[in-house]
This record gives sequence, C-alpha cells and structure tokens, in this order.
Amino acid sequence: MRVEIVAVGTELLLGQIPDTNSQWLGEQLAANGIASHFHQHVGDNHERIVLAFRTALARSDAVIVCGGLGPTQDDITRAALGEVMNVELERDPVLVNAIRAMFQSRGREMPENNLLQADVPRGASIIAQTRGTAPGLICPIGQKVVYAVPGVPYEMSDMFERAILPDLLARERAAGQTSVIISRVLRTWGSSESGLAEAVGERFDALAADGRVTIAFLASGIEGIKVRITARGDDDAHAARLLADEERQIRTLIVDRLGEIIFGVDDETMEHAIAQRLVTRHLTLGVAESVTGGLMASRLVNVPGASQWFRGAVVSYASEVKFELLGVPRGPVVSAAAAEAMAQGARQVLGSDVGLGVTGVAGPEEQDGQPAGTVFVGIALGDEVTSVALRLPGDRPRIRAYGAISALDALRRRLDQL
Amino acid sequence: MRVEIVAVGTELLLGQIPDTNSQWLGEQLAANGIASHFHQHVGDNHERIVLAFRTALARSDAVIVCGGLGPTQDDITRAALGEVMNVELERDPVLVNAIRAMFQSRGREMPENNLLQADVPRGASIIAQTRGTAPGLICPIGQKVVYAVPGVPYEMSDMFERAILPDLLARERAAGQTSVIISRVLRTWGSSESGLAEAVGERFDALAADGRVTIAFLASGIEGIKVRITARGDDDAHAARLLADEERQIRTLIVDRLGEIIFGVDDETMEHAIAQRLVTRHLTLGVAESVTGGLMASRLVNVPGASQWFRGAVVSYASEVKFELLGVPRGPVVSAAAAEAMAQGARQVLGSDVGLGVTGVAGPEEQDGQPAGTVFVGIALGDEVTSVALRLPGDRPRIRAYGAISALDALRRRLDQL
Repeated sequence: MRVEIVAVGTELLLGQIPDTNSQWLGEQLAANGIASHFHQHVGDNHERIVLAFRTALARSDAVIVCGGLGPTQDDITRAALGEVMNVELERDPVLVNAIRAMFQSRGREMPENNLLQADVPRGASIIAQTRGTAPGLICPIGQKVVYAVPGVPYEMSDMFERAILPDLLARERAAGQTSVIISRVLRTWGSSESGLAEAVGERFDALAADGRVTIAFLASGIEGIKVRITARGDDDAHAARLLADEERQIRTLIVDRLGEIIFGVDDETMEHAIAQRLVTRHLTLGVAESVTGGLMASRLVNVPGASQWFRGAVVSYASEVKFELLGVPRGPVVSAAAAEAMAQGARQVLGSDVGLGVTGVAGPEEQDGQPAGTVFVGIALGDEVTSVALRLPGDRPRIRAYGAISALDALRRRLDQL
Repeated sequence: MRVEIVAVGTELLLGQIPDTNSQWLGEQLAANGIASHFHQHVGDNHERIVLAFRTALARSDAVIVCGGLGPTQDDITRAALGEVMNVELERDPVLVNAIRAMFQSRGREMPENNLLQADVPRGASIIAQTRGTAPGLICPIGQKVVYAVPGVPYEMSDMFERAILPDLLARERAAGQTSVIISRVLRTWGSSESGLAEAVGERFDALAADGRVTIAFLASGIEGIKVRITARGDDDAHAARLLADEERQIRTLIVDRLGEIIFGVDDETMEHAIAQRLVTRHLTLGVAESVTGGLMASRLVNVPGASQWFRGAVVSYASEVKFELLGVPRGPVVSAAAAEAMAQGARQVLGSDVGLGVTGVAGPEEQDGQPAGTVFVGIALGDEVTSVALRLPGDRPRIRAYGAISALDALRRRLDQL
C-alpha cells in the first residue's frame, strides 16, 4: 500500500498556515509501517483539486485528503470527489440531523451553511464526526480509495485513528503485505550535519548495500540534529533485532568521535533530558532568563510532571528587574558575571536547588559592547557557580531559540558531572 | 507563470520535520503576485524524485526544489535533475575551491563528502552560497525552469530573494504578464469560523460572481481566525483600490455582527496589538503566569522594541512561588482571587504600571476542584483589579497556548476601555 496525502486549501499555497496535517499523518503512517511516497498541496479550485486527486490515484494506492469539507463557500472537496468518482452528491438526512443536534447540544444557533456538510458523493461511506460538524468520507474508486477528512487537526487525527488506519491495515492484510517497519531517532546537540554524517559514514556505506536498514540525518533547528535509523523486518522481532544492532554501532561511532552529544531518543526533547536528570538526583530547578524571554520556562513545563522539579522562572527583561529582584550587581548585564548572578538569584528567589541564568544579545544592535548572538549561561549548583559563553548564529528569534536549547544542554552536561 | 514547489526529503514524508520552506516560499510568491497552484513532498528516492519533477513540469511553468543538495549520501537532488535534464553531472572546480574556502574561513576541517556539493548538471547555472556550503542551481528545461536550493531555511530564503525571485519576475515581464495580486489579512479572536463566514456571507456571494476579489477563512489555532481578502488588479493602484473597498465592507459587517474581534492585520499578532496600546498610553507591563508557563512572556518579547514597555515576567509554576514571591494569599491557586493577586504581585515585583496574571488547569487532572481548561486572567491597572474566567478546550499544550492568547486578548479589551 502506497498512501498519498493531499492537503487542500489556498491558505497552504499562500503560506498563511503551516501544513501540520501532512506531517502528523506521515508520522502515523510510518509508525504503522505504511509507505507514503508523495504529498501534495492544492488550492480551493475545482479543476486543480480534481487534477491533484487524479495525479495521486495514478501513483499511489490510497489517498488521504485533508481540508475543504467545512461549512463555508470555499469548501469544495466534496464536489471534486464527486467528479473523480463520476457520481452526484446527495444530502444525507441522518447527517443533517446529526449536524443540527451538534449545534443544539452546544446551545448555539446553527448557521444554515453548515448543512453543506451533509452532502455525500453517491457510493461513499461516512466517517462520523465526534469533535466537530463536518463528517469524513471513504470513497472507493476501483481497487483504490480516497479518504476525506476535515482540515482541523483535532478532527482529522480522530478520524484517522478511528476509521482510516483500521481500514488501511485491513487492506494491507488482505493484500498479504506484512513486513514491519520501525525506526529510532537519536537526538544530538553540538555537531554539524556533515560532521555527524562523516562520523557514521562507514555504516552508511555498509547499509546502502543491504537495504533493510537505512540512516538519515535531519537538521531540526532548535531541536538539534536527528539521526534516524529505520529497519524493515519480516516481523516485529526481526525488525527490532536489526534496529537494536544498528543503533548500538551508530551510538559507539558518535560517542567515540564526537563525544556525549546524544541527549535523547525518539520524542525525548532536551527538556526531557533535564527532567530525567533532576528527578534522579532529587533536585529542583529555578530559571532566570532575559534574552530567551520565557522560552526556557515554556519548554520545561511541557514535560509531564514538571511540577515535581520545576519551581518557576523570572523573565528579567528589564535590567532593573535583574538588579532589584535577582540581586545582579549593577553594571553590564551581558556578561558571565551577570549570568552567574542571575543563576544565584533564581535559586534564591524561587527557592530551588539549582539555578540557571541566561543573558545575552538577541540583536540586531549590540549591547554592553557585545555583538548580537553573544549568550552567557550561568549555573548555580551546590557550592559552585559556573558559566559558559556562547556565540550563536542567526536573527533574533533564532538566537533566542538556540540560546534556550544551548543553555539547557549546558545544564545537562553540568548535571552529568555530579 | 505558475510555480510549483517540490520539497525533497524522506523526513518530510515521515513527518519528522515540518515543511516550513513551502510555506515561506508560498507566502513570498503570493506577495509578489506569482501564482502557485501545487506543492509536492517526495522522499530521498531517485525514481520518485524524477517522477515528482516530471509531474510538476507537466502542470506548472517553473519549479522550485528545496532539499537534497547537502553533503550526505542521502542528498540526491542533483542526480535527479541531471536525469530530467538528460545531461551528466560535472564537478565544478570553482565550487570546489569555494567550499574549501568556506571551511577554512570557519577554522574547521572539511569532511571530504562536502565536495559532492560541487557537482553540477551540464547546462545549469549556479546560485552562489553566502550562508552555507551547498550552492543552488538554475536548470533550464525547454521553456520551463527548475530552481534547486538547499533545504536549510536560512540558505533557501537567501537564494530565493537574491536569485530566484528576480529571475521569475524577469520571466513574467518577458511573457507580458503584469496583473498585480495583493492581499490583506484581518486577524480575529473570539468567533467561530462558521460564525465569521455567515457574518460576511453576503460579500462572499457578491464576490464569487466577480472573480477579481476573493475571501477565505483560515482557522489558525492560537493565532485566531484569519479573514484573507485577495484582489487582482490591472496595476498597483487598481488592486489597492479594489482591496481597500472590500476591506471596508468586510470590517463593517464583522464589527456590526460580532463586535471588536479584529485585533490586527497581516503580520500583526496579538502581542503587537498589546504593544501598540501600551506604547500609545505610555504604560509598562509585568506578567505573572503559571498555567501558561512562560508562553506569554516569550510571545511579548518577540515584538521589536519590547524593552520599551515590557518589564518581565514571573513564571510561578510552584504554588510556593505564588505565595512567597508574588504575595498571593495562601489558598486555592486556581481562582479569580489568585489571578487578581498574581496581577498585583507582578506589578509590584516587576515595577510595572500594568499587571497581568494568569492561573489555571492545563490538565489532564483537575486542580483545586476546577476541571482542565479552567483559566483565570487577572488585570491590575490603575486602582482597578479585574478578572475574567475562561473555559478552554483541548489537551495540555492547547490549553496553555489558548490561555496565553486569550489572556492577551482580555488585556487588549481592557486597555481599549481607557
């Protein structure tokens, strides 16, 4: 089974919103060992939607269409499906009642245009809505199939899990396709992509000949560089064995040549790495940040159970807040001394075991004689207060975001010294 | 000119990274009045990249390819271009020297695989690199053209602005295509998409007949719902007149029927709306946040010149920090009283004119007898301390993100009462 994703919406072509749906669906398909070779975006235009569907059906076995099922006048996916299936649309009375009931249950008046969502191409079956108003559709076309779901991520994901994935897996079983694909991502911070590629180059060459295991490098901005290892086995156990064996070899090469740059696997972010180390050592953390402006705190609270070890943060954007609240000595606020004082101030004001302070220049102008990209990270831990100086590339948002993960990485390495 | 974007990389199909490049390019093309009807994603597979290029060339006049130009073994865009152009690749000695020089200037040793980036399909011209190592390519194919740029956003955007956009505009002029497309986005917070669509429904119907002006609705999650008005005119002045006329009518319908839900236009985020109101009134802001965990602060500092009016934030994640640092009375911390005390505490501790406090339950468990999604926003301004209670939908990250923009929106409405 090769599944193609078609995301419908002029807003995607115009770049007004990111296409998070194709990303999420791609991830889900891969996790279930279903191949997906192409994605398309197409605007709210009847002829072009029809062309995109026909292109997808020519090169893939199944198509998942996201968007264009809503209640407004630019939602025309249903009509395009009717044309590709060569059938009429019919208004479904059960859906009409369900849509009316949905509005009644929320105590809201129903704008009449919502009933467009009850139009169904003849021969299609319906994926019931549980979170919104537009139902999904399963449209058989010869031996192939088009699934249509709303573009609202929350509704799309529900319909995928409840109806599309089971249908796809049943089709795979019926076709006797049972190989298992699994993958593992090693997450790194502190090397370049080409440096990583060279470190593991001998494995890359060995694997190319085999084909059952592949490696890819993903430069993921503020999440570091990821090394993805993917294994295709005859069954779960075979795939797991291939993957574990390769992961061991890759890890050894990276650590030997580049040091302790792997901070997590799969979905484990840098903040998970911090959480794990603090919980193990029974330590709490308080943060003082200026250049990063709350980014470190907002990353840290994303870890489930953060209240166990995260006390809070002071975002000391104004210098006066650094001096008066955190007790930073008056003087240049972009310096190693200021970062160390912020770390100590955070620990004291927030009542934590560990203090992390970050100050720097996001630019574009320099500050305290320091160029944009200068970032100092202070860490107060036990009797020691240490600091690290960084020079980060990029514009304001990049310097902020890189500053946040770099500071957390510095803390990770410091905690590993305990 | 119809331009198609093809983003290359298995990581896109597997959903391991978002495709921010297509979004950015789509935005740039639209801003310059260049049509883009389709995007594709394809993996690092030679045959499928070739098929994606041929599909794009069949339905579009120009193709921008992002990715697969890097130094690692999975970067195969160059070879696929050679096949579509039906030419050999040749190693360019000038590029070899440039790549070596780039590494020398950074004081880094060059991994040998970087020289793959000097391979060029015969007949292609080169877009010089200024920010990385992989050069871009301009590949003429009959009357059509394929532009290839690296997938690193920072390098891609530079090459687009410096080489691709000028080339596209020159091709449009040569073809005598001079219509001008401009658009305006009205950003709203506080209505549903179907409510907005119904409010402006009469304009939608009127415009469908005309074709020179179009409206679309974009549900943009934590950025609210956007109403995009696009006008196509014979020249700049004509397009601007059409757009301004339509915007006036749409604004009147929205304000009459839904109230003051428009908080900005185009790129103006909610934090810009806050900044503008604070600067006009010569007020400074201090924030205390718990459920939003630093998200409000990190949004506010994104506004250029934030240091003029933003003092900072206390992320009081632990209850003790609320009591001891912010002076919140001991008791339930998810309450209107706690939000108001946090707002007062923020004002005092951070030395600001206005205090904004946000407390709530991100879930999944309830807290202080309040269900997940409960959020209280306190605002301290002059002699008055007020609060707003919200019930937000979604999981933890959504409740946090919606809480942050909802609190900022409450502050916007409060400042408008002055």
